[in-house]
Amino acid sequence: MSKLNRRGFLRKAGMATAVLGSTSVYPEFLYGQVERPPQSKYMGGFSAPKLENLRAAFIGVGARGGYHLKFLAALPNTQVAAICDVYEDLVKEKVGWVREVADESRHKNIKLYHGDENQWRTMLKEVRPDVVFIATNWANHAPMAIESMKMGAHVMVEVPIAVTLQEMWDIVDTAEATQKHCMMLENVNYSRDELMFLNMCRQGVIGELLHGEAAYIHELRWQMEEQERGTGSWRTHHYARRNGNLYPTHGLGPVAQYMNLGRGEDSFGSLVSFSTPSEGRKDYAEKNYTTDHQRNQLDFKGGDLNTTIIKTQLGKTIMVQWDETSPRPYSRLNLIQGAKGTLAGFPTRVALEGGVEGLTKDHHTWVQGEQLEALYAKYDHPLYRRLNRAAQGSGHGGMDGIMVYRIVECLQKGLPLDQNVYEGCFWSAVSPLSERSVASGGYPQPFPDFTRGHWKDTEPLQIVL
Amino acid sequence: MSKLNRRGFLRKAGMATAVLGSTSVYPEFLYGQVERPPQSKYMGGFSAPKLENLRAAFIGVGARGGYHLKFLAALPNTQVAAICDVYEDLVKEKVGWVREVADESRHKNIKLYHGDENQWRTMLKEVRPDVVFIATNWANHAPMAIESMKMGAHVMVEVPIAVTLQEMWDIVDTAEATQKHCMMLENVNYSRDELMFLNMCRQGVIGELLHGEAAYIHELRWQMEEQERGTGSWRTHHYARRNGNLYPTHGLGPVAQYMNLGRGEDSFGSLVSFSTPSEGRKDYAEKNYTTDHQRNQLDFKGGDLNTTIIKTQLGKTIMVQWDETSPRPYSRLNLIQGAKGTLAGFPTRVALEGGVEGLTKDHHTWVQGEQLEALYAKYDHPLYRRLNRAAQGSGHGGMDGIMVYRIVECLQKGLPLDQNVYEGCFWSAVSPLSERSVASGGYPQPFPDFTRGHWKDTEPLQIVL
Repeated sequence: MSKLNRRGFLRKAGMATAVLGSTSVYPEFLYGQVERPPQSKYMGGFSAPKLENLRAAFIGVGARGGYHLKFLAALPNTQVAAICDVYEDLVKEKVGWVREVADESRHKNIKLYHGDENQWRTMLKEVRPDVVFIATNWANHAPMAIESMKMGAHVMVEVPIAVTLQEMWDIVDTAEATQKHCMMLENVNYSRDELMFLNMCRQGVIGELLHGEAAYIHELRWQMEEQERGTGSWRTHHYARRNGNLYPTHGLGPVAQYMNLGRGEDSFGSLVSFSTPSEGRKDYAEKNYTTDHQRNQLDFKGGDLNTTIIKTQLGKTIMVQWDETSPRPYSRLNLIQGAKGTLAGFPTRVALEGGVEGLTKDHHTWVQGEQLEALYAKYDHPLYRRLNRAAQGSGHGGMDGIMVYRIVECLQKGLPLDQNVYEGCFWSAVSPLSERSVASGGYPQPFPDFTRGHWKDTEPLQIVL
Repeated sequence: MSKLNRRGFLRKAGMATAVLGSTSVYPEFLYGQVERPPQSKYMGGFSAPKLENLRAAFIGVGARGGYHLKFLAALPNTQVAAICDVYEDLVKEKVGWVREVADESRHKNIKLYHGDENQWRTMLKEVRPDVVFIATNWANHAPMAIESMKMGAHVMVEVPIAVTLQEMWDIVDTAEATQKHCMMLENVNYSRDELMFLNMCRQGVIGELLHGEAAYIHELRWQMEEQERGTGSWRTHHYARRNGNLYPTHGLGPVAQYMNLGRGEDSFGSLVSFSTPSEGRKDYAEKNYTTDHQRNQLDFKGGDLNTTIIKTQLGKTIMVQWDETSPRPYSRLNLIQGAKGTLAGFPTRVALEGGVEGLTKDHHTWVQGEQLEALYAKYDHPLYRRLNRAAQGSGHGGMDGIMVYRIVECLQKGLPLDQNVYEGCFWSAVSPLSERSVASGGYPQPFPDFTRGHWKDTEPLQIVL
């Protein structure tokens, strides 16, 4: 690529004002192919042909994948075609879960794969599923998603969609080349409060949106106990080796959709990031394990709490925090501030210019606690109303159930999904970009424009009824 | 100054790792004289000779100065020596306030100055006070503080201590040359919760401190109504012209003292800063004034909300927000997170590893509301207990009363003040540094080391009984 083309790309992608740090190295490969290959197509508002009888395969059915499987199996016109995991016991257990929600006449020929680390590749070849749900360790997300799309399947990938920027570009390029959905499974976007806030933002209740706050503050040191198998067996190593904002999407996904980032109105610009010193996991290991234990051999480099600020193309800001170590209560912050009011989470609270009708006189007091019922009655998202009511008691009314319901509904009806491949990449890109910013002493890092300038043409997420 | 000396200074001041932005211009004057003049002395733990009968003068007795005057006048062995303001009515009113708290036998010869903008200079020459309280508009803080010290007085300056970095250096140099106190009047450091948190941090209740959060979120658009006189008449112009974190000290002061920043343990390193677009003040002017009104002639450049992250020399972080525009409830955040727990404000809440004795089992739940009584009983700061109890009903138990009481006590007994001149400068420096960071697209900005490396020798603030 010539220097001129490179410059043109940076300008086009709105990165002209984001200056690279002097210590930074920006290999071209971090930013993918500059030109979209002629046979590829932009996937911003993509809808696939209807899949009226949906054949689904599941790779990884441990902590998360089993629930996706169970919710899907309960829905009409679905077929659980294959279950794959390295652990046989998990695969067998999940067959049982299918039986709990669907009678013997359904899901008759579930192919089971386990043992060998490459069984998933065999599964893709033999089963040729319509859609693959991937809930494996992070390092496998991108290779499995890419291979699944190449083998003709849509893919639903657990968060984050990938670990490196190169992997994200590869996912984008593959989705565009194969014309397959690749949606990240950001379930929090389907949580009641988040759906209501989205609805309120779309209705203009808080005016022009200016600032958001997102977080994943969730003390999970106990996962270090999982040493041979389970999330902690691999995630602990990420948290020991990498220093940044390593799990941003649960907080950021909803806020990014309130703001329509990457969808017509605005998009991601750059970020700055600082981490605290690393203290809590070392302390935890020293307290809970013998000196020669493997958890005491780790050199914990990742700061306990990371604070990142994202600047959008229009100059709006989002503060994103991450902390899975410190002893404090759970929070995703979930704050969105507009020129006419503020909506916030943990606890849920609302303040509006001129007050909330019948509850507050002005914006100096939060509406919260039992007072919120009036707001739920007025602003609950139609999707939540429909599915929560329809699914009382089935577990489908919660965010995971609503998410899987919507995925199945959209694929069966040939509708665009609620999260496109670019959103999954933008939200996940906070991790590698924050690592770069932290390592450089807080230098701003530009977001790659995964849409190659097309975010301006993408429709905002509709309020689905 | 030679390049070599300049480099040596930067290194000595711990700025070696903080890299300057490519768009930045760093005139030498921003960082003061590199070498402290030989006749000057470091003021970190400074105590002045006892002033058993304290003669105090007040410059600016509008929104804040009158309260300082009233609290001081009520204390034994004080003398209100002079009151100065451009507005005669304010001066006369405050003489009345003195009479409300002290009988006729005291404060007999109060000199009154008003009218001319330079009356304060005449006052300093004629009255020669021991201490001057300055509560004027921001632009006057530094010139008045510097001149007062040169005329032999200690000075107590409202927040911020000054507007520019050059002014802060001039204040430091003057204090060191004249050996006079120059304390910024950060009253929030004397608020009950802040004092309790300081006490808990010193007792090690939350372990090693890693992260803090501070804010001044206070919707004050109504100040735009003050057009000829009063805070809004000049502050509105700062908020229209400057884009940054313009009022950081109420939130930051307490958090910086929890962390002992600039006092032996750690100090300020660098900051990054982003502001949202500017929206609320323009909207407010359009809604409330005619098109040709002066408030509709302003070009509002300052973002409604600013988010800044400070990195300390030890790598700890402090998130600092500022918003006097958006319609939302008041908050100073007031959060301090350690390896063993978190203390937070707005609302006040506490979570500790292993739980809070008798109240919570673990750190997953906040102690808050009425439960806090048990914590106040155990951890209320001794200073708060003493003064709140001694001053029931007098107004002295609140943060302003405690602050003035402590200033008078320390000056009369010849003790160091609770906030030294460097702390006032570090806390205030967030404003000009954040403006630079915002203007450069988020580039990290190193803090000047106002102590010239001596923060390592300064004692932490003692827990005063």
